[in-house]
Amino acid sequence: MAQPALLACDWGTTNLRAWTLDAEGAVMAEREFPLGVSRLGAGEAEGRFQREVRPALGAERLPAILCGMVGSNLGWRAVTYADCPAGLFDLAAALTEVAPGVRIVPGLRCQGIAGAPDVIRGEETQILGWLAARRDRQQGRIVLCHPGTHAKWVLIEDGRIVRFVTAMTGELFALLSQHSVLKSDAPAEDEDAFDAGLAAAGDGGALAARLFTARSRVVGGEAEAASTPSYLSGLLIGAEVAAVPQQLGERPARVVLLGDAALCARYQRALERSGIEVETFDGIAAAVAGLFALGYRS
Amino acid sequence: MAQPALLACDWGTTNLRAWTLDAEGAVMAEREFPLGVSRLGAGEAEGRFQREVRPALGAERLPAILCGMVGSNLGWRAVTYADCPAGLFDLAAALTEVAPGVRIVPGLRCQGIAGAPDVIRGEETQILGWLAARRDRQQGRIVLCHPGTHAKWVLIEDGRIVRFVTAMTGELFALLSQHSVLKSDAPAEDEDAFDAGLAAAGDGGALAARLFTARSRVVGGEAEAASTPSYLSGLLIGAEVAAVPQQLGERPARVVLLGDAALCARYQRALERSGIEVETFDGIAAAVAGLFALGYRS
Repeated sequence: MAQPALLACDWGTTNLRAWTLDAEGAVMAEREFPLGVSRLGAGEAEGRFQREVRPALGAERLPAILCGMVGSNLGWRAVTYADCPAGLFDLAAALTEVAPGVRIVPGLRCQGIAGAPDVIRGEETQILGWLAARRDRQQGRIVLCHPGTHAKWVLIEDGRIVRFVTAMTGELFALLSQHSVLKSDAPAEDEDAFDAGLAAAGDGGALAARLFTARSRVVGGEAEAASTPSYLSGLLIGAEVAAVPQQLGERPARVVLLGDAALCARYQRALERSGIEVETFDGIAAAVAGLFALGYRS
Repeated sequence: MAQPALLACDWGTTNLRAWTLDAEGAVMAEREFPLGVSRLGAGEAEGRFQREVRPALGAERLPAILCGMVGSNLGWRAVTYADCPAGLFDLAAALTEVAPGVRIVPGLRCQGIAGAPDVIRGEETQILGWLAARRDRQQGRIVLCHPGTHAKWVLIEDGRIVRFVTAMTGELFALLSQHSVLKSDAPAEDEDAFDAGLAAAGDGGALAARLFTARSRVVGGEAEAASTPSYLSGLLIGAEVAAVPQQLGERPARVVLLGDAALCARYQRALERSGIEVETFDGIAAAVAGLFALGYRS
C-alpha cells in the first residue's frame, strides 16, 4: 500500500486546502481549513499549521510545500517574488524553507500593463502544474487565463511564464454587486442578461460609462432589476476579454482557461463569442500537480 | 428693498440646497439640509419640505421649484423623464406640479453608450442655467462635462441637450477606496501620484487590468501605499477622459467643465494633458440660474 510522501497546501487569502500525496503524486487525503491569511493574526500561521493542519491529515512528519498568500506579509513570512521568465526549475530553485521540512513557493513578478510591475502568488503553481502534466505543453506559445477575484492572463513560452497581466474583474463585480448603486442580491444566473452584458461591453473601452448602462437599462424600464448581476457579470467579463489578452502581444486565436469550472464557463462563453478558441482545465488538479512537481520531484 | 419671489431647491441624493431668489434671480438667502432622498423614508419628502425647508427660509408662501432626485421614486414623486433633445423651453413645458405652487423639473433621457438608454436628473438644470446665462452659448456645438459620483458628458447643440453619457467614475473611486484591496484612508492630494495615474490610464481600455497597477506598484516596492488614492483618482479620471468624450461623436477640442471646483480642477488637469482645452464654471451658480429660469421666467 502506498505511503504518504508529501503534505501539499494551497494556502490563500480565504482558505487553506491541504492534500497528502504519495510518491507518485496521487492524492491520499484532502482537507480544507478556514485558515486563509486574511483570517489569521500576525505570527499565527506557523502555530496553526503545525498544531491543526498537520495532525488533521496525520502528516506530522511529512515534508511540506505551501503556495499562495501564505508567502506574503499577511501569511507565514514574506517570500521574495521570483522574476519572470520562470519555469518549474526556476521556481524549484527559489523555494524558501520557513521551518524544518516546510517550504514556500515564491510568487512571480514581471512588467505588466502600462509598464507597471505585476505580481502573482498562488496561480503560478497551478500553471506550472498544468504545464508539467503533458510534454507537448513545454513548447511554443500559450496564452492562459486564470479567472478569479484577480484574473491572471499569462503568456507562456517553451514552458516558462514570460509575462502576465492581472485584471481586477472579480473584485469589481463583488464591489459593484455589494456596495454600489447596482447592488443586488439576485443570483447571476440569467443567461440572456449575461449575453446582453457581453454585447454592451463593446471593445472594453470607457468601462465606467458602460457600467452605468446596468443602471439605466433598469431605470429606463428596459430590464428587470433582478437581471442586473448577470448583466454586470457579462459586461465586466466581456470588457476584460475584449481588451486584456492583447496586452500580452497580439490577440491570441486560442486561450487556455484554468480554474473554477463555473467561472471558466462564463469566460469560455465570452471568449468564444469574440472568436477565440478555448480549452478549459481544472485548477485544483493543476495545483496538486504543481505542488507535487515542486515539492517532491525537486 | 427686493422681495423674495421664488424658493429654489436642488434636492439630491445626499443633501437639499435651498435658496430664496428675488425677481431678478439674485440670491437673498441660502440653506442646506441633510434631507437627501437617500435619507428619507417613503412618503416623507412633502412633509419635511413644508414643515422644515419652507419655514427655515421664511418661504411659506413662495412658489417653489425643485430639481434632482426628488423627482425619482426615492423622492417626492417619480416624475417621467423628458426626451432629448431638450432645451429650457422644453423642460419648462414639462414641469410637474406635485403640490399647490410646488413644481419639479423632470430629468432627461436619451440613447447613451452602446445603444443603451441613459438618464440624468438634476444636472440638466445646472446645464440649462449655464446655457441661459449668456446668449453666445445658445448656438453651435458644445461638449460639457459635469464630474461627480456619476459624471455626465453632454452634447449640446444650439442651446439644447442632444445626448449624454454617464460615467460611474466617482462611484468607482469611492468603492475602490473604501472596500477593495486598494482601500486607504490617505487623502488624494499627492500630485505626482495623480499624474502617474493619468499616465497609466493610457487609452482608457482594459481598465480592470490598469486598476491592479495601483496595487502592484505598492507591492512591488515602487510606491508608498499612502499615494494609492491619488494614483487611483488619476487613473480613473484619466481613463474616463481618454475614452468617454468621443462617445458623443468626434473627440472634442474643447470641453466645458461645470461643477465642484476641486473636482473640476482634477478633470482640467487630465483633459489638458490629453490636449483638450478647458473652461470651468461653478455648478452651484448654474443651478440657481437654471432653477430661476425654469421656475420664475417660465
